Amino acid sequence: MNLSSGAILVLSGPSGAGKSSLISKIIDHIGPTYFSISTTTRAIRAGETDGVHYHFVTEEEFKREIDQEMFLEYAVVHGNYYGTSLGPVKQALKEGKLVIFDIDVQGHDAVQNRLADITTSVFITTPTLAELKKRLHNRLTDSEEVIAKRIEMAKREVQRVSEYDFLVVNDDLDRAAEILVSIAKAARMKIPTLQINEFVQTWEAQA
Amino acid sequence: MNLSSGAILVLSGPSGAGKSSLISKIIDHIGPTYFSISTTTRAIRAGETDGVHYHFVTEEEFKREIDQEMFLEYAVVHGNYYGTSLGPVKQALKEGKLVIFDIDVQGHDAVQNRLADITTSVFITTPTLAELKKRLHNRLTDSEEVIAKRIEMAKREVQRVSEYDFLVVNDDLDRAAEILVSIAKAARMKIPTLQINEFVQTWEAQA
Repeated sequence: MNLSSGAILVLSGPSGAGKSSLISKIIDHIGPTYFSISTTTRAIRAGETDGVHYHFVTEEEFKREIDQEMFLEYAVVHGNYYGTSLGPVKQALKEGKLVIFDIDVQGHDAVQNRLADITTSVFITTPTLAELKKRLHNRLTDSEEVIAKRIEMAKREVQRVSEYDFLVVNDDLDRAAEILVSIAKAARMKIPTLQINEFVQTWEAQA
Repeated sequence: MNLSSGAILVLSGPSGAGKSSLISKIIDHIGPTYFSISTTTRAIRAGETDGVHYHFVTEEEFKREIDQEMFLEYAVVHGNYYGTSLGPVKQALKEGKLVIFDIDVQGHDAVQNRLADITTSVFITTPTLAELKKRLHNRLTDSEEVIAKRIEMAKREVQRVSEYDFLVVNDDLDRAAEILVSIAKAARMKIPTLQINEFVQTWEAQA
């Protein structure tokens, strides 16, 4: 009997908490993964590549995919559509991969509603709001206006930490990465209820 | 802010599934732990040591502890009382240790009812019932009558696997141990809701 199958790891947390650095640090240590790439209608920026940073589509295409129920979740943020297409996620799960999502609290909600029994979720944050502000300013990539928006969003999101399975405070990158590796490895072991029922039914019968 | 605190790992599964071997294999790889020792009224057997295998007490002592609400959980099995004293568990949690319980499905139920938000549970079993029978016979430690009892209990317990967070099929000791290490390390990261609320409340304020 084969109990290995795909599982989902949701990572949320404020922009500036170090999610990307953490992901690139752990990705080689947690077995076969598929990093879910969002689909968006927002304009492509300098330095971004279609199919790497996002799948860039027109609003018309996006809306057609909504109608065809091709999204696991989607949301409108600052007038742009962002969503997660179901197709590649299903395929990766079928291949037994750990599907990693870098999505916000709303997205997490949607994933939990549909795939709770194979999902493990982690909220990643800085030790304090002051530290988050410092990091956002040090990055020098965002305007004051964008930073202010990110901070407001962070304040709202952190209120919903208890909806997550784990909270990882990224005060030290190596320590946080080590914790995340353990969580990711365990996340892979989550077995869907359906498969467990099947296991129980055949456990007695199998010679 | 210190988010490290104790957590609980419950291990259940039929006698013969290899729990003891697994525990001794992982114990040095998962950080500071406290292995919970049950209290019982059954007679001490040859080769057993009081305070190592069990805390052996009289029925009178046991009942007094019940009255004083000193048990996290207790049960009567084949006319003997078995229970988990709260004192040492609380102390170990306070010291930030991972408290490991080797308890049955009933015991797991009791722990979940009282300490769900810091508890991770794992059901460990053989790949099949036939394999369990083979292992129990090969151990040569139990009479046919005891083996029959264990098998009946295993059949009942396996029906409740879906109440556990993880199912580990012990078909290969090294592989199962590796999985259990990941689960144990992640289990340690479970943070009680109370502490998360405290974190959220102070996150904005802290400089």
